[in-house]
Amino acid sequence: MRKLRHEEISRPSMDEAKLLPKHPVTVVLDDVRSVYNVGAIFRTSDAVRIERVLITGITATPDNRGLHKTALGAQDSVPWRYMATAGEAASTLKSGGYTICALELTDAPTLTTRLPHSAFPVALVVGNELTGVSDPVLKQADYALEIPQYGIKQSLNVAVAFGIAVYDLVRIWRKHSQP
Amino acid sequence: MRKLRHEEISRPSMDEAKLLPKHPVTVVLDDVRSVYNVGAIFRTSDAVRIERVLITGITATPDNRGLHKTALGAQDSVPWRYMATAGEAASTLKSGGYTICALELTDAPTLTTRLPHSAFPVALVVGNELTGVSDPVLKQADYALEIPQYGIKQSLNVAVAFGIAVYDLVRIWRKHSQP
Repeated sequence: MRKLRHEEISRPSMDEAKLLPKHPVTVVLDDVRSVYNVGAIFRTSDAVRIERVLITGITATPDNRGLHKTALGAQDSVPWRYMATAGEAASTLKSGGYTICALELTDAPTLTTRLPHSAFPVALVVGNELTGVSDPVLKQADYALEIPQYGIKQSLNVAVAFGIAVYDLVRIWRKHSQP
Repeated sequence: MRKLRHEEISRPSMDEAKLLPKHPVTVVLDDVRSVYNVGAIFRTSDAVRIERVLITGITATPDNRGLHKTALGAQDSVPWRYMATAGEAASTLKSGGYTICALELTDAPTLTTRLPHSAFPVALVVGNELTGVSDPVLKQADYALEIPQYGIKQSLNVAVAFGIAVYDLVRIWRKHSQP
């Protein structure tokens, strides 16, 4: 086998991408502290072609220089918006017909692979590295999504957990929506 | 729903974990440049309970201070070893019966969800952030694993891609190996 050269990798252009349908997932960043994590989440959001990133609270926006370095341009291809709080973002999305899914360990977990197709469109809320998803979001959450963990530590890195979860969600959507 | 407190999250202790069977995957880090990525990969490797991390070339080892900060202790629960080159690591693993899987875009891709169960035990090779998996590994690779990407950029962050891929592999293993 042979590694593909950059020019051999087929990707839509920025203009083409704007015409392509997005997978019906919006991610809400609820006080994500690390610019590095926000950048990685933008790259994943571009790769998996979801609707938008809602940035809330203390989370860095693409105006932040460090984010440019880690997002590697994905902040220009993924629509984003800032809102003051994740609770406000969740209630706006909920009014708009979104199912609120918190990526959080709770007493009522649903595996990321088991979300029903009827739940789409989905707002996937990713929380702070230390304190997790905020209470105002959890109060409105329809599902708390969980990734099975078998190790001795208590958590995956937030950008990694988001990557695993959003790919699982998009697979559920595509399985039921594609020919 | 209610967020779990730390003490409510059920995890094995370090001693218990040593007795639990590992999922038959070894990850090879082939010149991974960022300490942050190596730390996140250790955390994921703990969470998904795989056999070990083989660190090669310029990849930081757990002696690196920055790695301690990002691995958050996972470097103590996941067995690891340093080898000079990823090519050497791959040939040692191949002699030991491992299937060599490069996480890389090639002209002969296999989706991470489609690896046959008969491929286990698996050596999953993750490459440098800029140049990808090295040629000496690709020459020995049985599979080049690919994560579908729908965006305009050409790649996921390496720690995120590893997380998605290793969870897919472990699900394949568990689906066919668990009661």
